[in-house]
Amino acid sequence: MSDKIRVAIIGGSGYVGGELLRLLLRHPNVDIAAITSRSQAGKPVTRAHPNLRGVTALKFSAPDELQTYDTLFLALPHGSSMEQMRELTKVADRVIDLGADFRLKNSEDYSTWYGYEHKCPEFLKDFVYGIPELHREEIQKTRWVAVPGCTSTSAIIPLWPLVKKYRVKLIVVDSKVGSSAGGLEPGPDSHHPERAGVVRSFKPSGHRHLAEMEQELGLAKQISFSPHAVELIRGILSTIHVFMEDAFTEKDIWQTYLQTYGEEPFVRIVKERTGIYRFPEPKLVAGTNYCDIGFEKDERTGRLVVMSAIDNLVKGAAGQAVQCLNLMYGVDESAGLDCVGLHP
Amino acid sequence: MSDKIRVAIIGGSGYVGGELLRLLLRHPNVDIAAITSRSQAGKPVTRAHPNLRGVTALKFSAPDELQTYDTLFLALPHGSSMEQMRELTKVADRVIDLGADFRLKNSEDYSTWYGYEHKCPEFLKDFVYGIPELHREEIQKTRWVAVPGCTSTSAIIPLWPLVKKYRVKLIVVDSKVGSSAGGLEPGPDSHHPERAGVVRSFKPSGHRHLAEMEQELGLAKQISFSPHAVELIRGILSTIHVFMEDAFTEKDIWQTYLQTYGEEPFVRIVKERTGIYRFPEPKLVAGTNYCDIGFEKDERTGRLVVMSAIDNLVKGAAGQAVQCLNLMYGVDESAGLDCVGLHP
Amino acid sequence: MSDKIRVAIIGGSGYVGGELLRLLLRHPNVDIAAITSRSQAGKPVTRAHPNLRGVTALKFSAPDELQTYDTLFLALPHGSSMEQMRELTKVADRVIDLGADFRLKNSEDYSTWYGYEHKCPEFLKDFVYGIPELHREEIQKTRWVAVPGCTSTSAIIPLWPLVKKYRVKLIVVDSKVGSSAGGLEPGPDSHHPERAGVVRSFKPSGHRHLAEMEQELGLAKQISFSPHAVELIRGILSTIHVFMEDAFTEKDIWQTYLQTYGEEPFVRIVKERTGIYRFPEPKLVAGTNYCDIGFEKDERTGRLVVMSAIDNLVKGAAGQAVQCLNLMYGVDESAGLDCVGLHP
Amino acid sequence: MSDKIRVAIIGGSGYVGGELLRLLLRHPNVDIAAITSRSQAGKPVTRAHPNLRGVTALKFSAPDELQTYDTLFLALPHGSSMEQMRELTKVADRVIDLGADFRLKNSEDYSTWYGYEHKCPEFLKDFVYGIPELHREEIQKTRWVAVPGCTSTSAIIPLWPLVKKYRVKLIVVDSKVGSSAGGLEPGPDSHHPERAGVVRSFKPSGHRHLAEMEQELGLAKQISFSPHAVELIRGILSTIHVFMEDAFTEKDIWQTYLQTYGEEPFVRIVKERTGIYRFPEPKLVAGTNYCDIGFEKDERTGRLVVMSAIDNLVKGAAGQAVQCLNLMYGVDESAGLDCVGLHP
Repeated sequence: MSDKIRVAIIGGSGYVGGELLRLLLRHPNVDIAAITSRSQAGKPVTRAHPNLRGVTALKFSAPDELQTYDTLFLALPHGSSMEQMRELTKVADRVIDLGADFRLKNSEDYSTWYGYEHKCPEFLKDFVYGIPELHREEIQKTRWVAVPGCTSTSAIIPLWPLVKKYRVKLIVVDSKVGSSAGGLEPGPDSHHPERAGVVRSFKPSGHRHLAEMEQELGLAKQISFSPHAVELIRGILSTIHVFMEDAFTEKDIWQTYLQTYGEEPFVRIVKERTGIYRFPEPKLVAGTNYCDIGFEKDERTGRLVVMSAIDNLVKGAAGQAVQCLNLMYGVDESAGLDCVGLHP
Repeated sequence: MSDKIRVAIIGGSGYVGGELLRLLLRHPNVDIAAITSRSQAGKPVTRAHPNLRGVTALKFSAPDELQTYDTLFLALPHGSSMEQMRELTKVADRVIDLGADFRLKNSEDYSTWYGYEHKCPEFLKDFVYGIPELHREEIQKTRWVAVPGCTSTSAIIPLWPLVKKYRVKLIVVDSKVGSSAGGLEPGPDSHHPERAGVVRSFKPSGHRHLAEMEQELGLAKQISFSPHAVELIRGILSTIHVFMEDAFTEKDIWQTYLQTYGEEPFVRIVKERTGIYRFPEPKLVAGTNYCDIGFEKDERTGRLVVMSAIDNLVKGAAGQAVQCLNLMYGVDESAGLDCVGLHP
Repeated sequence: MSDKIRVAIIGGSGYVGGELLRLLLRHPNVDIAAITSRSQAGKPVTRAHPNLRGVTALKFSAPDELQTYDTLFLALPHGSSMEQMRELTKVADRVIDLGADFRLKNSEDYSTWYGYEHKCPEFLKDFVYGIPELHREEIQKTRWVAVPGCTSTSAIIPLWPLVKKYRVKLIVVDSKVGSSAGGLEPGPDSHHPERAGVVRSFKPSGHRHLAEMEQELGLAKQISFSPHAVELIRGILSTIHVFMEDAFTEKDIWQTYLQTYGEEPFVRIVKERTGIYRFPEPKLVAGTNYCDIGFEKDERTGRLVVMSAIDNLVKGAAGQAVQCLNLMYGVDESAGLDCVGLHP
Repeated sequence: MSDKIRVAIIGGSGYVGGELLRLLLRHPNVDIAAITSRSQAGKPVTRAHPNLRGVTALKFSAPDELQTYDTLFLALPHGSSMEQMRELTKVADRVIDLGADFRLKNSEDYSTWYGYEHKCPEFLKDFVYGIPELHREEIQKTRWVAVPGCTSTSAIIPLWPLVKKYRVKLIVVDSKVGSSAGGLEPGPDSHHPERAGVVRSFKPSGHRHLAEMEQELGLAKQISFSPHAVELIRGILSTIHVFMEDAFTEKDIWQTYLQTYGEEPFVRIVKERTGIYRFPEPKLVAGTNYCDIGFEKDERTGRLVVMSAIDNLVKGAAGQAVQCLNLMYGVDESAGLDCVGLHP
């Protein structure tokens, strides 16, 4: 056990904490040294994560019992990581933050999008935005990773190759999102009789994840983003309507994606001629770290329709975090991430 | 009973036929003289429509037993109405067709969008496209109405006031649709294990309903339309991303909608400051003839986001047909359509 | 308006209050004089009940603004009605209580099943248990009705004719219940990611509604009751496994039900040879006041399997309350209750 | 690869075939030498099983291209295995049949329960009923295993320890079943608008799986079984109401289960004092080979309520088949079966 990566999960009772645990328990190179929860300290982790019954006997520890670790995973409410960051760097070499506090490079963006002053802006320039498909080499070298937002991931990965190659006029990202993206806390909007069976436009404009898309794609005010809550627990389908200045064919897009992502372990191009799953489908990636990408050219209007599917808790959070960990330590990038999806 | 409108429903065993029945059975001015079904002739309608148990003792009759009626409702597969239209005009004064055969004015559009030669193009110019909010006066005078497609209705009603008033650059209609829109016939795509819980982009471009949107809005090749199958039986939410040449404020949009639809019995503007139902929600209109419209201006990109919610089988089919019937006969436009939605 | 029944709904912001409103707004003999809500006083009722947009302009009033009314509907948390009952009898002739406080005849049962001392036991003997199928004449004469629990209704109506006619050995009531039965308050058990898609045995034994079943059926300790939460918002299917001392045939059961319920406006016997809806199905009764009953004899074990389906908010609460109101005032028993279910 | 078990899956395009594939592809001791499908021969398996994209490049072969293998898995329609069994024994040492053809010991039971004459009754005595928890030693020694029905598994595993120890009076098994149990073929009952959101009693009595329960538990005509279709794709919750001659306490039942199943790798006793998952929940075992068992004593009636949760396609089919394979070959009983469930 001595040469394994000793990690601690800070804030382990929520959905992201539970996913980290699910993945890391099966990770061949990781030893989970601690998982903290203020509310559940002392209790078995299976109390919060009953899917892990029979799989682990771990218990939650209190946040103030932290010792030293190789890496900390922070699964905390937005705003908490930046309050603790200076302290936390003392107990661990590396920090992988799954909240929003270190995703944006420009500290002023926090005032604009989150409505608060950043509390440790000096860290922002050193945090790497944790999408391996875009920043693999930086992640390999950094000590600090900010894991992206879930809808951001679902938009940035499919858009990045296009934006690099083509001049884009206008982009509409219309996302359909499962309820787990809202986290563990019950509220009127997540109450089953009110949430089940809805198709709810809960933030037609101004969603914070747009800040990440603009930053990573370098496209200020050209992206329109509207997320919708649909009947789904895990998963996001983002339908991305792209209007470009340049002419293109479907074959061009194929080549663009293959050149960029042909060797990526967690990106699949899903585009078949027939069949009910000929385009990406969130159900099929539930529990996995895949980002499936499909597309079609609308010959009538010249639009490119891109569809992407991820599990918001895996590629959209915990899985991407583990993928970053693997890169930071030089172990197999897929270690701990070999879960296969279910069908039906 | 003698001064009631004597109607027959042709093709009454499907979902649209069932909805016509549900609505017309409670219609104070209508007498259902016949409902036909080739496969179910002789059987009680409750065999196909079990929700009507205890409400009616009607039986299906065979299609060849037709007598004469005031009005025929045609709820037939696409392509069937045009084959029978010449015959059917002999048995009824008025025809309300719920299929696609008479929606498009230009017979060549049938080759383009449906892939077949129209069989009685001489009727096309006399059929009125049955959205009362756009064509009330024509419907009042016509003998023949073509009831629009469901997603077409959900896009045209909210877009029409905007298109009349503003110069539009580009429109993206991203619809989320329930499974009943696919009709009664089982298939691999509607098989529960394959359909439940999906977010499926089943026709990213080229959907036939776009032809109706272009025709009614007079916007060739400016509308991009992508429908999605989501976990829902009844209902459509269309998120309509509108980019305009002209400047506008939210107040302008409010006024535009109020001026156009302020007196409409079945259009509600749904836009509140707070609450989980501050925008349109398909669940709330299930069973009703409402088209709910909401909107928000995206100040960052200048986009107008419009959301519309309908029940695809009511305002998207049978309800709109009954609304047209009411107009054709000069009875209360809301007769038979006073169903209130459920919550939760 | 002067000869209408003037009613007030006390506690109108919850699901049962909303259903009362939906039904009473369309009731030809009722005038809703007030609907109270402590938290929403002054706000339009559509804030809590968005399905009623365009249907009513009513506002909530504060509970302390009560005047006098013909009838009060109490839709309050358990334990509240008995605290206010003495006061409330001053403001209204008649009281229809939808909570549990006056359902049980024996005040000691409140200690046993609810864990509290009853605060006005003197009322218990005069309250009539509001299932019209069992107590029509008493309801016609009473001033005070206690509307039964939802699962109680789903068990008592189908069991009562059997228990009257046969000697019963043992009964197992296995109910499958929608989430609206849990009311408006969010909690961990109703949080969508935790509640969606479950099949949850939330109270395998000892559920309070059993007290009502025992009381009404006169069968102490012979009924076993286990409710389950399933993926459903509205509706209950109770599968009732009946073991009897007496021999019986399916024809006997048919006759028993027809004799007892043949004339009932809201009981339908649903038992067909074929078809996917040959037995009761909660989906088909959503929004309606029906109690559908089906059955089958298990020839191998001699068991009688009875299935009943209701909408927990209608026949299981508000609809049954309105049915009682109609009886109390001698108006058409179905007034306000003619809603037809949806399919699909 | 040479010392791996060479297996072929016969009938691999259905749901059970897909699950076998998902599990065996990750099995350290197995080499999938062939997977056949008459309809899909020559096509990639991912056409039928899109969850396996990126995981395997296997193609379906035609059924007549069979060579020789160590073990055949038969995932065929009921009635097919017995037609081919004599032939199939020539191409493989061992056969694991996932259909019903060899589950019952008594050939006459096939006439009674399945309505057909058995075509190779001579095999019946040598097939072992494949529940490892009951027949581990026989499975280790046999060449032929009949994998049990899904609801049978969910009832037999929790009942067997009770039946061994106590005198049982009467048992009611009330099961709630997901739609994947109905297999791949679309039909009116599986059509999404008709199947979604139902609570359907589809076979109140006389279900074939009861024959297996009676056989394995040795309780003729004492078990009443009623399965229900609920909104769920994968999973079964069986609520088992047990009435016993003998007195018992909850502690007795705890001990009985611990003694019998304390060392079982795939049985978990789930019984906690608090929490929303204090009893078994099918969602938590989806994709896994667990059978979760919980219970509660109903002190009022003396009933024991037992709840069991399985994934019908895993412990109810493919997973149990792989568990049997592992036993037959003496490899780790959990090999290929280490999938962890998801939450939420």
